Amino acid sequence: MREDLQNSPFLRACRREPVPYTPVWFMRQAGRSLPEYRRVREGTTMLEACRRPELVTEITLQPVRRYGVDAAILYSDIVVPLVAAGVDLDIVPGTGPVVAEPVRDAAAVRALPPLDAGQVGFVADAVRMLVAELGATPLIGFAGAPFTLASYLVEGGPSRHHERTKALMYGDPATWTALMEWLTAVTTTFLRAQVEAGASAVQLFDSWAGALSLADYTALVQPWSARVLAGVADLGVPRIHFGVGTGELLGAMAAAGADVVGVDFRVPLDEAARRVGPGHALQGNLDPATVFAPWEAVAPRVLATLQAGRAAEGHVFNLGHGVIPTTDPDVLARVVDLVHEASAADGR
Amino acid sequence: MREDLQNSPFLRACRREPVPYTPVWFMRQAGRSLPEYRRVREGTTMLEACRRPELVTEITLQPVRRYGVDAAILYSDIVVPLVAAGVDLDIVPGTGPVVAEPVRDAAAVRALPPLDAGQVGFVADAVRMLVAELGATPLIGFAGAPFTLASYLVEGGPSRHHERTKALMYGDPATWTALMEWLTAVTTTFLRAQVEAGASAVQLFDSWAGALSLADYTALVQPWSARVLAGVADLGVPRIHFGVGTGELLGAMAAAGADVVGVDFRVPLDEAARRVGPGHALQGNLDPATVFAPWEAVAPRVLATLQAGRAAEGHVFNLGHGVIPTTDPDVLARVVDLVHEASAADGR
Repeated sequence: MREDLQNSPFLRACRREPVPYTPVWFMRQAGRSLPEYRRVREGTTMLEACRRPELVTEITLQPVRRYGVDAAILYSDIVVPLVAAGVDLDIVPGTGPVVAEPVRDAAAVRALPPLDAGQVGFVADAVRMLVAELGATPLIGFAGAPFTLASYLVEGGPSRHHERTKALMYGDPATWTALMEWLTAVTTTFLRAQVEAGASAVQLFDSWAGALSLADYTALVQPWSARVLAGVADLGVPRIHFGVGTGELLGAMAAAGADVVGVDFRVPLDEAARRVGPGHALQGNLDPATVFAPWEAVAPRVLATLQAGRAAEGHVFNLGHGVIPTTDPDVLARVVDLVHEASAADGR
Repeated sequence: MREDLQNSPFLRACRREPVPYTPVWFMRQAGRSLPEYRRVREGTTMLEACRRPELVTEITLQPVRRYGVDAAILYSDIVVPLVAAGVDLDIVPGTGPVVAEPVRDAAAVRALPPLDAGQVGFVADAVRMLVAELGATPLIGFAGAPFTLASYLVEGGPSRHHERTKALMYGDPATWTALMEWLTAVTTTFLRAQVEAGASAVQLFDSWAGALSLADYTALVQPWSARVLAGVADLGVPRIHFGVGTGELLGAMAAAGADVVGVDFRVPLDEAARRVGPGHALQGNLDPATVFAPWEAVAPRVLATLQAGRAAEGHVFNLGHGVIPTTDPDVLARVVDLVHEASAADGR
């Protein structure tokens, strides 16, 4: 890896090293909130777009150009590796992923096809193109964590209560284990393909882990996420672990093998630092709804997030959840500038 | 109040007195999961149904008959007092409440009409009918808390991120205060009407409080909920305070003036007891998705909830969120029986 990239503020913060200013990127920074994104996506479905390396490269670069964020994140979707493996799944606009035949019993799990790295070659191609374009700006690869992917497969689509997934977890441990084993393999293959093609960090999104109690998370989910994170440890890139509404789970998510724990906006970063303990950087956690307020109300909240983040051993500024689609990009641009200026002035 | 009612296990548990067995009811016990409910609701909209005391009485009694739960909860909706006051609002099946003209500025707040108790006379009528029918079984009245109601008014309907509500809270404190003052008055009037007509307890539902950090909740929301709870204190009935995803807020929700704190399923009751401190009973908190698992997986989780609840000064068994519409009522019936039998055998 080139030295200026290796020494980028984002990677230094992930490694808990001193930084010239606090690095910042935004979950879902590439996407619906950007007019230039909506233009290039016209006439292309989400899954088609994810399979076209030139388009992925363009979309991934858009927020880097516009905002000057300190990291790019690959434009893709957590269901991409499932589709690549052969699961019959579509992303329906306005709904989300819809699985043609939900996976609810042992036979359905046995029938799931393994994922070969060659099947996500289009992702590796996009990563290689991006790394060449990005220069000293790190590219974050990502994957959905086994529990979140399992919920899509079992429920057949997005779910509010995850009741069929929980019924399977609680009621049929053998089938649950088999499903998590398959998802662990798929997720590990997908992440390794991205890092081997040049991604400088990975984020494991367990978007829905917050739907679980700590006891259930620890017994039935964390071991599989830990196996995924261990499965990329030899590649030597920082591993970020994030979920929404996971205040109760932060310690367990850190212990799963995260170098950086992503924190949603419900828990202040100083409290999160206490919960994850030493040896981890934090990422987060401005409430994404904040940027809908007038700037006079936004700025103090950005500064308060920076201040709370000083309790962490390393801090990557981010939102506490993805960019809301109706967000004004100009406000995000001001947030980036404020984070950079205020943190550079403060020193760290 | 008749003595057998005053000494009912539900009211005793709320008052943190010894009980012969742990009382149980389910949030949303009256409603879509019951075939007898779907039958009586045919051809009637939700808001029409809420205005017909005979129908409200029948629907409220259905789960008491079927399950033998220890409390009834008035069949109504948190938007009923808003509609009664004159807000142009409809409940759209499959969507939820939709407000014709969202309330987003000072002029819109000033234009909100006050609620007179006479405008919810149909609710008081239903309560009187119910109390006559229920005998020794307590009736719980309820209302939505100011923040949750504000979100409907400001967003114009159900919202995932509450971004306009937060923008108003953060960016225009004077308008936020005026809106919360109006909602506090409406909610207090609505709760008082129910108790004065004979309800034995009240539950304040702040369904969406979990979308707030503790700092924002404490500064901008809790004072108004506290004012509502204080506004019914002289009536002498237990006040239950509940929200979803409120692990971080339990202490503040208790301090708002709750006799009983409703706990969602993400925090075990023994940990919740620590967070709320002495002087409060707890209500909860079986994950409503649990009942989709085979009974062999459900029963130990019911018993574990009872066991954790022994750490509380009083325990009302409930789900940690409302009954999921596709729930099998027969499983809920078994849960009621198991709670009664296991807790009676254990003593308390």
